[in-house]
Amino acid sequence: MTDDGFVEVIDQRILPHKLEIVRLTSYKDAVIAIKNMTVRGAPLIGATAAYGIYLAIREMIEKQLDGEFLDVAFEELRASRPTAVNLFWALDRMRECLDHSDNFLSDSLNQANSIVADDIETCRMIGVHGLPLVEDISKRKKGEIVNILTHCNAGMLGCVQWGTITSPIYQAHLKGIKVHVWVDETRPRNQGSNLTAYELTRHGIPHTLIVDNAGGHLMQHGMVDIVIVGTDRTTRNGDVANKIGTYLKALSAKDNNIPFYVALPSTSLDMTIRDGLTEIPIEERDQNEVKYITGLRSDGQIDSVLICPETTNASNYGFDVTPARLVTGLITERGVCEANENGILSLFPEYSTTTA
Amino acid sequence: MTDDGFVEVIDQRILPHKLEIVRLTSYKDAVIAIKNMTVRGAPLIGATAAYGIYLAIREMIEKQLDGEFLDVAFEELRASRPTAVNLFWALDRMRECLDHSDNFLSDSLNQANSIVADDIETCRMIGVHGLPLVEDISKRKKGEIVNILTHCNAGMLGCVQWGTITSPIYQAHLKGIKVHVWVDETRPRNQGSNLTAYELTRHGIPHTLIVDNAGGHLMQHGMVDIVIVGTDRTTRNGDVANKIGTYLKALSAKDNNIPFYVALPSTSLDMTIRDGLTEIPIEERDQNEVKYITGLRSDGQIDSVLICPETTNASNYGFDVTPARLVTGLITERGVCEANENGILSLFPEYSTTTA
Repeated sequence: MTDDGFVEVIDQRILPHKLEIVRLTSYKDAVIAIKNMTVRGAPLIGATAAYGIYLAIREMIEKQLDGEFLDVAFEELRASRPTAVNLFWALDRMRECLDHSDNFLSDSLNQANSIVADDIETCRMIGVHGLPLVEDISKRKKGEIVNILTHCNAGMLGCVQWGTITSPIYQAHLKGIKVHVWVDETRPRNQGSNLTAYELTRHGIPHTLIVDNAGGHLMQHGMVDIVIVGTDRTTRNGDVANKIGTYLKALSAKDNNIPFYVALPSTSLDMTIRDGLTEIPIEERDQNEVKYITGLRSDGQIDSVLICPETTNASNYGFDVTPARLVTGLITERGVCEANENGILSLFPEYSTTTA
Repeated sequence: MTDDGFVEVIDQRILPHKLEIVRLTSYKDAVIAIKNMTVRGAPLIGATAAYGIYLAIREMIEKQLDGEFLDVAFEELRASRPTAVNLFWALDRMRECLDHSDNFLSDSLNQANSIVADDIETCRMIGVHGLPLVEDISKRKKGEIVNILTHCNAGMLGCVQWGTITSPIYQAHLKGIKVHVWVDETRPRNQGSNLTAYELTRHGIPHTLIVDNAGGHLMQHGMVDIVIVGTDRTTRNGDVANKIGTYLKALSAKDNNIPFYVALPSTSLDMTIRDGLTEIPIEERDQNEVKYITGLRSDGQIDSVLICPETTNASNYGFDVTPARLVTGLITERGVCEANENGILSLFPEYSTTTA
């Protein structure tokens, strides 16, 4: 939040090469920032949408618009990305707050702030519960380096603080446990090489960038001790939607008896569905995200280069679903559980009344 | 071959954006072209090494050098890439020819030419034997499009003509069978997006470029009928070394009951070893191949862009090994066989005396 009551976010599209702040002054700005991935990462998308509602209310009051304007804002924010369920959760929480409010402006701001505060605490607790997994491997290896492989960015940049998968890593590092992270570059948008490598660099965590193709080979040769990934939506059965390519790493972890964990705030759970493969909508994005790659030129300019014949068509599914049978466990803010209904309900009994 | 007796190759590092011919006038040129991947693809590496020996002999005669010069040429060519076994096979064939030669210059040229001629016929026959696999799927789908996924480039550009994996595809296309190829971009060097997409475009074969992460999702959703890849070295047990990331696709094919075939000339068989995971040396290449991506700028220049923080280290293993248990079959110039010793020996009984 800025002093004049607007919202500022880091433009994640140009990291790690430039650190630029984008100012969101209307809900439309928030919609665009989510759609074009100025902000990304399930929890951060939720937080941005929550502030988007606050910005819509501000505009509504200033311009003396009626409630229809707010309804449109809710609709457009809800439609900004299809896969991450935190988006819908945050908007529902904002709606519920407004349903019992007689001061939309201050109540919506307080609610958005509280979503962010909860997110920070949730991520911290994911680290508290995930830390023993890393610690145990470190003990078993007699203090040698624990090699963690991750895909995409489920770090601080996709959340507000701590991150989900990075929270146990940061906490292990703070405790003096030797960790090393294999960072999948995560094509097509390279959130691994652009964002995860960036934040691990800033936190002084040893890491090595790899192409998405490399994980299998590393696992075959004992160079990975544990895989931890995030999720955009996890079903009641424990099926995990996450960045495209996650399923391939889960298969490889299974084939090599390597634990495969998913770190998630409970806001990423969708207890209304069971079968991830048929019930989670998978976003298809612009083919140019595959055909062009963005990076830093030697003259310091950020530019995109074409990597295929101009006439070649590309397909660009944003996510895939890892079946629960490949998931060793879910690391949540309340503890670690098995990736199935019983596991989830043992930590979140309040969901037992939600029907799938 | 040029009129003045030198060798010309296509510079595959700048395809599809520019078509440039590189002239090799010495064996050193051949070593460099193999090392820096001006030429790549197991059969083409073999052919280039064979002509490299011819060029060394030319130089030896012109400069009146002794046999030591030729020995060094053999050694340097042998050390130019470690994983593809065709390289060693071609050099052995050249050595054997010279052992019984009284005219090094013309015999070495004839032998190199004959390696190329054999390669063309071998690739054509791989297509003849692979075609029925595609045809059967087409019949089962009542003439609907057969979706083939491939990784890296085992096409015409990696061979001399026909290619290995592309040979059945081209022959199916010529026969009027509807095919569509999912082209893995194949990071880090993007042989899929640069080369496979290029040659499929030139042959008018419908194809779609995908990131290496996407194949699992496509297979889960019935969008892939068959996977066909090449190999740089396949062991007596049927373990398959191929471009890094192949193993992940094989796991996914297995998990989704999709046939996974390897197309190879018998020169890619290494019958002296059994366990691919422990016995095939995996080349490690420069980390900058991961940190930088080359492509075409909007102003028409070919340039590289940095895709991670400058200080981040990268790891760059060139190949991985797919265990035989994940391979449905081997498509060779003599027919299709199971990926195991019995299967291979049923087609190539002459290898029964080779000891592993």
